[in-house]
This record gives sequence, structure tokens and C-alpha cells, in this order.
Amino acid sequence: MRENMVKIQFPDGKIKEFSAGTTVADVASHISPSLRKKAVAGKINDQMVDLSEKLYSDTRLSIVTLDSKEGLEVMRHTSAHVLAQAVKRLYDNVTLGIGPVIENGFYYDMKLNQSLSVEDLAEIEKEMKNIINENHPIQRKEVSYKEAETLFAHDPYKLDILKDLPSQEAITVYQQGEFVDLCRGPHVPSTGYLKSFKLTRVAGAYWRGDSNQDVLQRVYGVAFQHPNHLADYLHFMEEANKRDHRKLGKQLSLFMFSEEAPGMPFYLPKGQIVRNELMAFSREVRGKAQYEEVSTPFMMNQELWEKSGHWDHYHENMYFSEVDHTSFALKPMNCPGHMLMFKNSLYSYRDLPIRMAEFGQVHRHEFSGALNGLFRVRTFCQDDAHIFLREDQIEAEIKRIFQLVDHVYRTFGFEYSVELSTRPEKALGDDAIWDISETALKNVLDRLKVDYQLNEGDGAFYGPKIDFHIKDALQRSHQCATIQLDFQMPEKFDLTYINEKNEKVRPVVIHSAIFGSLDRFLGILIEHFAGAFPLWLAPVQVQIIPVSTVHLDHCLEVQQQLRSIGIRATIDERDEKLGYKMREAQMQKIPYIAVIGDKERQEKTLNIRQHGEKTSKELSIEDFKHMAAKQIKDRSAAQI
Amino acid sequence: MRENMVKIQFPDGKIKEFSAGTTVADVASHISPSLRKKAVAGKINDQMVDLSEKLYSDTRLSIVTLDSKEGLEVMRHTSAHVLAQAVKRLYDNVTLGIGPVIENGFYYDMKLNQSLSVEDLAEIEKEMKNIINENHPIQRKEVSYKEAETLFAHDPYKLDILKDLPSQEAITVYQQGEFVDLCRGPHVPSTGYLKSFKLTRVAGAYWRGDSNQDVLQRVYGVAFQHPNHLADYLHFMEEANKRDHRKLGKQLSLFMFSEEAPGMPFYLPKGQIVRNELMAFSREVRGKAQYEEVSTPFMMNQELWEKSGHWDHYHENMYFSEVDHTSFALKPMNCPGHMLMFKNSLYSYRDLPIRMAEFGQVHRHEFSGALNGLFRVRTFCQDDAHIFLREDQIEAEIKRIFQLVDHVYRTFGFEYSVELSTRPEKALGDDAIWDISETALKNVLDRLKVDYQLNEGDGAFYGPKIDFHIKDALQRSHQCATIQLDFQMPEKFDLTYINEKNEKVRPVVIHSAIFGSLDRFLGILIEHFAGAFPLWLAPVQVQIIPVSTVHLDHCLEVQQQLRSIGIRATIDERDEKLGYKMREAQMQKIPYIAVIGDKERQEKTLNIRQHGEKTSKELSIEDFKHMAAKQIKDRSAAQI
Repeated sequence: MRENMVKIQFPDGKIKEFSAGTTVADVASHISPSLRKKAVAGKINDQMVDLSEKLYSDTRLSIVTLDSKEGLEVMRHTSAHVLAQAVKRLYDNVTLGIGPVIENGFYYDMKLNQSLSVEDLAEIEKEMKNIINENHPIQRKEVSYKEAETLFAHDPYKLDILKDLPSQEAITVYQQGEFVDLCRGPHVPSTGYLKSFKLTRVAGAYWRGDSNQDVLQRVYGVAFQHPNHLADYLHFMEEANKRDHRKLGKQLSLFMFSEEAPGMPFYLPKGQIVRNELMAFSREVRGKAQYEEVSTPFMMNQELWEKSGHWDHYHENMYFSEVDHTSFALKPMNCPGHMLMFKNSLYSYRDLPIRMAEFGQVHRHEFSGALNGLFRVRTFCQDDAHIFLREDQIEAEIKRIFQLVDHVYRTFGFEYSVELSTRPEKALGDDAIWDISETALKNVLDRLKVDYQLNEGDGAFYGPKIDFHIKDALQRSHQCATIQLDFQMPEKFDLTYINEKNEKVRPVVIHSAIFGSLDRFLGILIEHFAGAFPLWLAPVQVQIIPVSTVHLDHCLEVQQQLRSIGIRATIDERDEKLGYKMREAQMQKIPYIAVIGDKERQEKTLNIRQHGEKTSKELSIEDFKHMAAKQIKDRSAAQI
Repeated sequence: MRENMVKIQFPDGKIKEFSAGTTVADVASHISPSLRKKAVAGKINDQMVDLSEKLYSDTRLSIVTLDSKEGLEVMRHTSAHVLAQAVKRLYDNVTLGIGPVIENGFYYDMKLNQSLSVEDLAEIEKEMKNIINENHPIQRKEVSYKEAETLFAHDPYKLDILKDLPSQEAITVYQQGEFVDLCRGPHVPSTGYLKSFKLTRVAGAYWRGDSNQDVLQRVYGVAFQHPNHLADYLHFMEEANKRDHRKLGKQLSLFMFSEEAPGMPFYLPKGQIVRNELMAFSREVRGKAQYEEVSTPFMMNQELWEKSGHWDHYHENMYFSEVDHTSFALKPMNCPGHMLMFKNSLYSYRDLPIRMAEFGQVHRHEFSGALNGLFRVRTFCQDDAHIFLREDQIEAEIKRIFQLVDHVYRTFGFEYSVELSTRPEKALGDDAIWDISETALKNVLDRLKVDYQLNEGDGAFYGPKIDFHIKDALQRSHQCATIQLDFQMPEKFDLTYINEKNEKVRPVVIHSAIFGSLDRFLGILIEHFAGAFPLWLAPVQVQIIPVSTVHLDHCLEVQQQLRSIGIRATIDERDEKLGYKMREAQMQKIPYIAVIGDKERQEKTLNIRQHGEKTSKELSIEDFKHMAAKQIKDRSAAQI
């Protein structure tokens, strides 16, 4: 090896020599001018560095470009600096906190004398664009701890951060134009690299997330490689915002929350109808699949939760009460209750599988800041099931569950992906049973020709599992169903059945939920359908609108006819214009609007308009009744 | 008035003079020899006295005979003494506690060296009969406190009772033969007065009900005026025991309890089916009556329960938890949640009545000793409803509710009685609204020609109410439904609606439940039907029994046919004799047994036997399907 040369190994394995002190940018240029142009940073042995980083020893190196996740993050980090720089230019007495990268963008926490408004954000964006146009080179500098203290003497939050850094090492700062920030980097080479960003909102945030510290203003922004990526993102957000189940929940009178019970949903009549339909659907499919519904208490004593392991491992998430001077816990899961129920009877190998299902209302603590509509609550209803079975039944049973989940998700039109998680390092239970189970799970997935992602070693310590992730209309993924084998619960509760040889042996337990949390699933459905539920789920299925008050009697008759066959029909009796009533029914996303005037009354027809359609169709009452009843029964889409 | 004479006034108002010192017995003789014969005690100015009591001043007097409740109680009290006397004769080292009267009989608490068995009770009964035959006169004596202390020097529990008595007053003791007891009396004149009694059981009991004190043996007995009353009672008890829902709950696999959650029922699959049917029935009738189902959280914070008044007035019965360092309570009632929900929307006078229904799972503490199967639990599901209405709607609404309750109870074949409770002394709310409400309640009862009991002044402080008491097959009465007006909740929660004049005014609230507690109602149903549920409620509606294994395939086909129209049919596939399977199905009280052999397979018929019948009937599968489906739909009785 020649002196003053370093060996650089590229991601493709090739090794090349460069003179020591060559920069990452030089290497990029050497590979290709176009790569040099796209490059925003480098990665040396898994550590991100600036393009200006000089290479003095042999190393692995990859060039990071804007079209990679890491490149985007570097750019977003620089965007945060540009944001801070712009704010300092526009306002006096700005004290900066931190400015990290987050999903899709960045934020910067800062203290200002005034509260920032949406209009202010537009001003700041304008100044950021100036800074980008000025295209300041971004320079990394190393300074001593003392120099850093001097540099940030008037920045109390930066000094606070400095305190946590080792005083004997060099401190890195980044400078762009007049702006200097305490930062580990890396950054893009100059501010001109930023192309498409937008400030989205401002919120309050405690310094260091500590409610005893100052409240700062957190300005959020998003940033992308291309303007059309930004446009796509903003469109997606707008769409997501329109579908926000918290907003629609209010608008469609589905549910409410109250400060008297944070994170605990109140279901209004219309929301409760949807829940009841979901439960009826679950009951129907579970019933056909020979599950038996049970019901277990909402709280049980400490001894039970100690036995189940929840007391030791789940304590933080549980709520407690006291009964007769004994500590009780509200159930965070239904398993222990089902174990007691299995233990209550004597089963032979012929009786298995025993399939217990419960709409179990569980309580689990969440931090108040983490609560989020129906997506993150403190109490929810699980469509929970536990199956007790013999080892030789595992494969057949997994297949049955898989088909059940598939049937349910198809009914809603959900696509889903599947992940299989296998034995972790610290697995409990016999190797043999792990082998049987993992093979069974794989066999089922293979035989059903399911594309799945294998997460080796990601299973729970008590058994392997299959997770289902549904994709909603905005292509967002939600983990819902799970099929989880459990070799531990039967041990802990000393469960047995009598085998062919009249011996007591342990059953295997499968935990399985399809919706998962009924509440969260409802939230997903609201967003997926943007509130326009399929006919069978719609709280109001048909809105009857009389053309004028003289048609009201006939409307009541029609309503009676529809209700008598179980169709949820309401009449808009208000003294309002027809058009107004039509718009309201559309806003309420009611699947069918049935307008009744002279013609309809005379000919026993309905003027039917389907939600989202601009035209209507004249149908005989009889035809409409049959059509709607069939669509409801089949859980198919409304369609005239 | 002559000296040495006293004026005695009889219940019929007549007054007679007797020489001072005349006994109650003398007075009875004077009235009629037959009355003297039947007399067991007297009642002077509402105070019970012995027949031997001497009269020295003017007074009201009635003669108490065995055919009155009070007379029976005197006799039962004497029975307790005879029991104690018999035990002291039979065993050494007997230390007596107390021996009071209870419903239908008496008990005596005592400490013995040995545990009493059922055989011992028979021995004791024999000795009691000896004492009765010996016909000892029963003598009341007054002794000084000191004398009493000497008399009971070896009876620690009697000394313990003495401690609570005033030491300056005379102490009364009763003597019969060799037996003396500390007692206020009165008693029948001699032991020969006892005619028909039976010792029923022995149980443990703490001295003074205090778990820190000694455990005594409590011997229970029943006693009646006539031997046939005793026979009737014992027959009733035997029947009640056969119907005991705790026993049937186990035998029919309906529910279980576990020491991990005392007083909190676990519903096994069969019990859950019955619950679900009850809920579906409630949903159906409530739906038709335009109630809207909602769902509210299981716990809410202290502030809410303070506002509702439960925190101050119901604290002892509530369970608490802590959420985010705030005290929360598990809901003991659903009202406050519904009040929040009403408050969440703006209502006009045209929107009222708003009828909210919820299957609300409430938790209420009960002492562990008070727990009793499904009759007394710590958590139960209420079919609760709150109606928000205008004052002018009260009467019409009460009528609607009344008809709803009537319909539901008729469906089960329950007779019921009605009680109306009106304004108590300490009533809250306007007199005017009390007047309107009470009149409305009375009007409805009168117009519906309902016989009702009026409990003047027995209403809650917040409003008048109607209670329904259903009578079960053993003529036992159970309070279930309630219609309760409430003028307070709307105040406390500041509820308003907008009236015709665009003013905010208070609605009235009606609390109303039909089943009351679904759990308790299920317990009542089990006992009422002795476990043989009507067809629509039966967990298994049809038990299919193949004559031999060759008929199994056809049985499966029939089962499939029945299930496809929603009939719960199971097959007894076991390798057992036909007769054995028939008996088991009878034991399980399944409404229809369908036997299938060669003939049935060939002719597409079923050999149907209805529960409780000795003969069977051959029916075509089609006919049976239609018949059963109709009976289920109509919720009528099974009947071939």
C-alpha cells in the first residue's frame, strides 16, 4: 500500500485508492459527475457525514443522494436550520431550542416574544426562500467546549444541551451565512439544495418535553425532493384531513368524547348502530365457524394477574381498584378469564378445538398526549377469541382462522398484507412444539399462496404469530388481526385435556382477533370510506324526502314498509327546501335518498339517488325494497 | 270511674272495665273461651306481652292468636328456646348465644364441643318433641341486674348481652322446666303450644356478626301453626331448591363464578346465548318504541360523580381507580353518562322525547356475605334507558313505557303487580311539577285499569315512581322494572332544550329499565322455568339423536337445514344407548328432541318429543322447521 493513499470500499464491494484527505465530494465526482450533482452527504461505516468530510483512513463509503431516505433526512435537517435562520432574521429575541427531522419533514422549537400565526408562517416561508436563493454554503466547524459556551452565551437552551456533552471533546457547529447552530450534522452543502418545502403548523411544546420547563413554539414543516412530491403529500394530507374520523365522528354524530373520561369513547346512537352491525357480523361469521361466545368479568384479583404474568409485565398499562381490601385490576386482556373458563370443565381430546369468543371490553392506560380519537383510547372492545386445541390440530385451525380473516376483510374491500414472526432468541417452550407451530403457520401461508413477510426472531417469547395489516383507501397500513400461538398460558394456568391414552396433556392456545379493537376498526372504517359507510353499516340507510308536506303521510307509509323488513329509513320532515334537504342527506353520506312527490305517490315508486351520484332513478317501492334488502343481507355495496 | 278497675279498649273500639291485676289471659277468656284457647300473647298499646301480663292501668289491648303473623312469631321465638333447651339436655358444655325469630322460623347460635350434623339435628328434634310433650309452663321473671349476672355467670355471651342493658333496671328471664334464658319475651304460655316445626340446617356464624369474635354454630328451624302449613312450606322449599338457579346454572352450563372475581359472573356459551337473546328482544322492542341505543364509558372522573351526587350519596357502593393522578369511579349507574350525551347536542322542543337506551355494565359493591348467585352480584348489565321530555309529554310517555313493560312481561308469561310511590316529605323540585307527574302516573294507571298499590310518601326525593313486581312460578315476588321521574338530574347537569318561544327550559328525565339487571332477570327466569327455557331462549333448541351411527350423515344434513334458518340444533354423536341420550336431553331441558332412524331417514321426517312430554310425534322435516321457526319468531311456547 502506498503511503498517503486510502482504500475506499464502495457498496458494490469494489475497492479503490484515493489520496488521503480526499473529500467525499471528490470521490463522488470521481465516480460520475451526475452522482456528484445528486450527492448531499456521505456514509462512512454507517455514519452519516458531510460531503466536505476528508478521508484519511481506509473505509467503506457510500454516497448519499436526495432520492434516498437518508438523503432526504439530511435535507430536512438543513431545512430546520434554514427555518431557524429565517425566524432570527424576522424577529427579535428569538431563543432557539432544537430542530430535528421527523417523518416527512422537520420542526424547530423556539421561544419568541409573540405567538406565531398561520400568516406569520407564510412570512417565514418567504424569508426561507430568500435564504435558499442566497445559496449560502453550509460549513461544519469544530470548536472547543469553551468557545462553544461563548458562542451560545445568549442561547440558554443551547447551553443546556452543551451541559450534556463531554467538555474535553471538540464541539461541532454549522454555519450558513450569518447563522450558526450547535449541531452534529451532516447537512447538504449549501442552502440552495432545498427545493420544495412547506411550513404546516405551529404548536406548543415543553423544553425537553418536561412540563416543568418553558413552553416553546414548535414550527412544523415538510420537505421533499421534488415539488410534485410535496404536492402529492399536501394532497394526501388534505384528503386524510377530510377523512379524519375525529372530524367525521362529530359531523356524522357517531361518537363523542368528554373531559370527564379522557380516551373513553361515548357512542352516540348512529355510532352504536355501526358497532352493533360490526358485532352482529362478527357473531355471524364466528357462529358459522363454531366459535362460542362467552362473557367474563371486567375486573379480577391480583392473584389472577400475577399468575397470568400481567401483574409483572403489564402493570404500567393497567388500572386498579380495591375490593374487600384486595387489589383488583380492570382487565387489559381477556385471556386469563378464558383460561379460568376452560379450566372449569373437563375436556377430552374429542372435544377440542374449543373456540371461545368474547366482545371483551378492556382498559389499558395510555398517556393523555398519546390519545387520538378512536385510534388510541384507554378502553376498547376487542373481538377476542381463544382457541384451545391439540398440537395435531394447529395447521387446520390456522387455516380456518386465516380464511375467516380473509372473508371479513374482503367484505369491507380491504387489501391486506401478512407478516409471520418466528421464534425469538429467548423463547419459552419446547423446541419441538415451536417447530410444529412454525411449520404449520408456514404451510398454511404457502398452501393458501399468501405473499408474506417473514420476521425471523420477531415472535413473542410464548409463541410465533401471524399479523394482518390492512390497507385503507389512502394506502395507509393498520395492523388489525393477529393469530398468535401461545405455549405459556396453558402452563401458567395448568390447563389440561384428556388424551386418547387417558392422560392429562396440555392444550395449545391460539389468541385471535379479527377487528382487533372494534373502536379502532370503526375509526379505520370511517377514514377508509370517508364516512360513506357501505349500505349494511350505514346508520341511516335510506333518507326519505317528501317533495312537499302533502306527501308526508305517504312517506310515513313507505318508511313503515322499509322498516318492517329491517331497513333503517328516516324521513326529513323539516320545513326546508328540497334542495337543502338533498344536500344535507349528501353531507350525512346516507347511501340512498328517496324523494317522494305526486308522481311517486301515484305510481308507488321512489325517486332514488345513490350517495355520490348526480342522477337519480325511478324505482318501484317493491323493487327498491328487494334490491336494498338483498344488498344489506349480502353486505355488498349500494348500487342502483 | 271505680277504683281498682281498668278500662280496656279492644281493636273494634269497644271499651270494657276489668278489675286491676286482671291478666291478658283472663280478658281473652272473658271475650270467649275459644279465643282463650287460640290466644298465645297480648298486645298492649303496640307492645307484645305474655298472656300472663297483669293489667293495672287503662289501655288498648288486642289478643294475639297463632293465626296472626305476630302470634306465629311469638311461637317461633319459643321454638328457639325449646331448641336451646334440647341442645343443653343432649350435649355438655353448651354456651348459648342468641335465638331470634326469622322469616318462617327461628335460629339459635351456640358454641358446642362438636360440630352438629344433619343426624344430630334429628336427635335434637326428638328431644324438642319431648320438651313439647312435657308441656312446661313458660314463666316470665324479673330479676335484678346482679341476680342476672349470677344466673348467667357461666354464659359469656349472655353476659356480653347484659353489658348493653341498663344496670339499674330489672332484667327479664324466661323459664321452662329446667331451662332459663335471658329474654325480653313474650312467649306462648307453655311448650305444649308448639305443634309443627322442623330443624332445617346448621351453619357457622360469628358472635355478633363480627369476624373478630368466636364462630358459633347456628341451628336453623322453621315452625308453623299447622302441620300442613309446614308440609306446604317444605314442599315449596324442595321445589325452590330444585329450581335454584345456582344449581341449574351449573347443571345446564349457563354460568360460573370464580374466587378470582367474587360476585362477578362468567357466562358460559349457553348462558351467553340466553343473554344475547334477552338483549336482542330488548333491542327489538326498544327499537320499535323509538329508543336509540348508545354506549358510555365504564368509568368517569370524580368531578362527574360529585356533580351527579353519587360521590356523596353512593360512595360506599362504588369501586374506584386512578387515572392520571385523578380519582375515577366505575359507573354504578348509567345516568350521568347519558346526561353528558344529552348535553352534547342542542335540542328543540320538536326533538323531544329523546329516548336513550344502553346495555350498561355497572359495578356496585356488595358485602361478600350478601352475594347470592345471579340475584346479588357486584357487576351486572342493566337494560337501562333515560328519556328526556317536556312536561306535557309525561303522561303519554309513561303510558308507552307501561305498555312496553307489559308486553315484555307477558312474553315470559309473568304476572306482575304495580306500586306507585309519591312525594316524600323532603322532596326536591317544584310542587307544580310533582303535581303534574303524580297525576300523570295515576291517570295512566287508572286509564289502563291497572290495580296498583299506592305508597304515599315513598317516592325518591327527586321524583315519583312506578315499580313492577313480577311473580314467578312459585309465587315469589321480584322487583324488576321501574319508571322513575327525575327533576333533579336535569338541574344538576344544567340540561336544557329550546322551547317554542326560543327559551332554554329544563327537560324532565325518566329513568326506566324493564329487566332491571339482566343478570338477575336471567336468574329469575332460570328459577321460573326451572331451567326449561321457552324455545326462543333455549341455548339448544333441538337435540338431534341418531338411532345408530348409520344415521349420522343424515342427522348432519338435518342439522344443517335447521341451522340455516337460525334454529340452534346439536347432534348427540356419542356412542351411547338411545335411551341414555334421551334422558340426558331431558336433563338438559332441551325443548325438542328429534330422533332419526331408518323410517325418518326414508320418509324425511323427524320423531319429535317435546320437553316434559312422554310421547313423541312424527313430523316432516319441513313442517317441523316451519313450526319451530314460527314459535321462535313469535317467542311463543314450544308446542307440537
